[in-house]
Amino acid sequence: MSVTAAPGFVAAGCHAGIKHRKYDMALIATDDGKPVTAVGVFTRNKFVAPPVLLDRARLAASGGKAAAVIVNSGNANAGTGAEGMADAEAMSAAAAAALGIDKAYVLVSSTGIIGTRLPMDVILAATPKLAKRLSVAGGHDAAKGILTTDHVPKEAVVKGSTFTLGGMAKGCGMIAPNMATMLAYLTTDADVSRDDLQRILKDAADRTFNTLNVDGATSTNDSVILLANGRAGKPDLAEFADAVHRVCEDLTLQMAKDAEGMTKMVMLRVTGAASDAEARIAAKNIAENNLVKCSWYGSDPYWGRLLGAAGSAGVEFDSDRSAVSYGAITVSRGGIEIAHDQAAVAAHMRNERIEIEVDLGSGTGTAQVIGIDLGPGYIKENSVTS
Amino acid sequence: MSVTAAPGFVAAGCHAGIKHRKYDMALIATDDGKPVTAVGVFTRNKFVAPPVLLDRARLAASGGKAAAVIVNSGNANAGTGAEGMADAEAMSAAAAAALGIDKAYVLVSSTGIIGTRLPMDVILAATPKLAKRLSVAGGHDAAKGILTTDHVPKEAVVKGSTFTLGGMAKGCGMIAPNMATMLAYLTTDADVSRDDLQRILKDAADRTFNTLNVDGATSTNDSVILLANGRAGKPDLAEFADAVHRVCEDLTLQMAKDAEGMTKMVMLRVTGAASDAEARIAAKNIAENNLVKCSWYGSDPYWGRLLGAAGSAGVEFDSDRSAVSYGAITVSRGGIEIAHDQAAVAAHMRNERIEIEVDLGSGTGTAQVIGIDLGPGYIKENSVTS
Repeated sequence: MSVTAAPGFVAAGCHAGIKHRKYDMALIATDDGKPVTAVGVFTRNKFVAPPVLLDRARLAASGGKAAAVIVNSGNANAGTGAEGMADAEAMSAAAAAALGIDKAYVLVSSTGIIGTRLPMDVILAATPKLAKRLSVAGGHDAAKGILTTDHVPKEAVVKGSTFTLGGMAKGCGMIAPNMATMLAYLTTDADVSRDDLQRILKDAADRTFNTLNVDGATSTNDSVILLANGRAGKPDLAEFADAVHRVCEDLTLQMAKDAEGMTKMVMLRVTGAASDAEARIAAKNIAENNLVKCSWYGSDPYWGRLLGAAGSAGVEFDSDRSAVSYGAITVSRGGIEIAHDQAAVAAHMRNERIEIEVDLGSGTGTAQVIGIDLGPGYIKENSVTS
Repeated sequence: MSVTAAPGFVAAGCHAGIKHRKYDMALIATDDGKPVTAVGVFTRNKFVAPPVLLDRARLAASGGKAAAVIVNSGNANAGTGAEGMADAEAMSAAAAAALGIDKAYVLVSSTGIIGTRLPMDVILAATPKLAKRLSVAGGHDAAKGILTTDHVPKEAVVKGSTFTLGGMAKGCGMIAPNMATMLAYLTTDADVSRDDLQRILKDAADRTFNTLNVDGATSTNDSVILLANGRAGKPDLAEFADAVHRVCEDLTLQMAKDAEGMTKMVMLRVTGAASDAEARIAAKNIAENNLVKCSWYGSDPYWGRLLGAAGSAGVEFDSDRSAVSYGAITVSRGGIEIAHDQAAVAAHMRNERIEIEVDLGSGTGTAQVIGIDLGPGYIKENSVTS
């Protein structure tokens, strides 16, 4: 019931029939139907899905207000053009009618396959049932309703000194390369202005979700939405920002752990870059390099591939001053292997969570990303349309 | 005997013992030991291997002259620092001694694992034997000696009206993502100035090898070397440039077909870009997207993933004016699926060679790259150090 942890929010999830048997719809709403402060961070992909276009327009028109979010999984309503926009509109109108509110305050998300229209009959039939099921206890069902290839729901709650912040997310099936559809919904009873809320959410997303979906090549549907009803009064803003960061970080780690085909989660730190920006570029290049990712799958501390990926990233790199460590054990310095405890490195590589640091030897810039290995499970899940 | 097809060149290959049983060394030389015009195109990776540093220095010092190239596979002599440079020097000196020539005219290439010193005893013992085996017929053995995870040797010959051009290459194990070590050696009896030769080779490499190794993220060891002895006199330069292009293109297609784990080779054309440069960026993004690559492995005409990858490439993209075709059959226009012959598309997708065009709807820029699918074979070959 994470997304309903803060007083004033209710939610529900159900099996509507878009997918076979699994939960495939969710509804989050204020418990009195009244709009509250709402902000969102959305995909930067230029091939953007109708629900995202609708949400951006609604939040702009309402001045940052929303009372409900309706979500379906199994179909992304992307690559569906004007008809897809009409479907997103109709989906929001159905939720508004069922809740007795103005559709101007209803946001919509979709996730799943691209290029096929939503099964609107199924969605419209399920929406009133979803609205009837809304409850504080329904948060967990909602967290199930937004999943696609995820294996487990992802929920997190932080209790502040004066407020509560809860959230749920769906992975990132296809995290590390890019284009995962990532959806996350946060609710709070804190009273925070729209501008502060937007800034805090954007900053938290950049430092958490966006370090996992490392290349900024977001999917057609990525959406992170935060609703704040203000019932708990004004929080300490620093404490609130920290809470948002912690919830987003918790959800990010849950997503990493549940990534498609994932067997290794790699906390990859790049140091010694000419700037933080160059560190991010190098980290992205390393984390997305298929040879590197395969070496992680094979538990192989192949430092040469890391330096090869760093050296081709187009940023300053001085191999004579470079270093690579696995699990804080330095294995390469100055571009060559140095004596090290190979058994300890091998033991570290067998962990599900691996720590790697690559020093570019060129400055003081740093960056951290979460990388995922590339193994057969990923290919199995992505080689046919699911 | 492709690399010895032009009069005046001899070659040999052998099993030295770096690898288990397979051929692992090659030598190419002028038949009279005299230096000829020589140019090279080398990796842009900043983590560059000693043999590449040595070759660049030698070609600069000699003013573009070489009489021999000695190559080993099984070990890249990369990530080996000053000791690796000394090993590359010693390897060239051994070849020079065996051939009775100045080592200033001997180039060196290595390919294989990174981070381990060359087994110099094995290499030094084999070099005189290699030199003794040099012959016109030895070209094919040389083509075997440079292979790593390749399954077959790659050779090509073009007979011009006045000259002969022959070449051999090793794949690109890991082509599409990057960092493959790609080696190619071309020889000709045409008389071409160093400057023209360099320009023609660079241009051909950009339009062939570099469309396969699409991201410019070359490996630590990539080298393409062209030797011209001038015996056939001055060629028509346009005809000669075309011949270089054709040999490089032929070798590139052989590399694509033999890529690690490859089941599909995709001729990916991007059109409608704001510029050719933006087309190349989009093509690279699409060809390197693991979701796209998995869909190719699955023979799945999932146009939405292509547009999703294009939309996140950071270039101009107008989904309302976009189009996607598989095998010249347009399946999406304006960002949505259009009626098309699905059976014909499915039949095309079953081919080993797939033709795809993505129109970004934003201008007249175009680019073409060769993409490779991502299947279990790739992971099997790259998850443990070979």
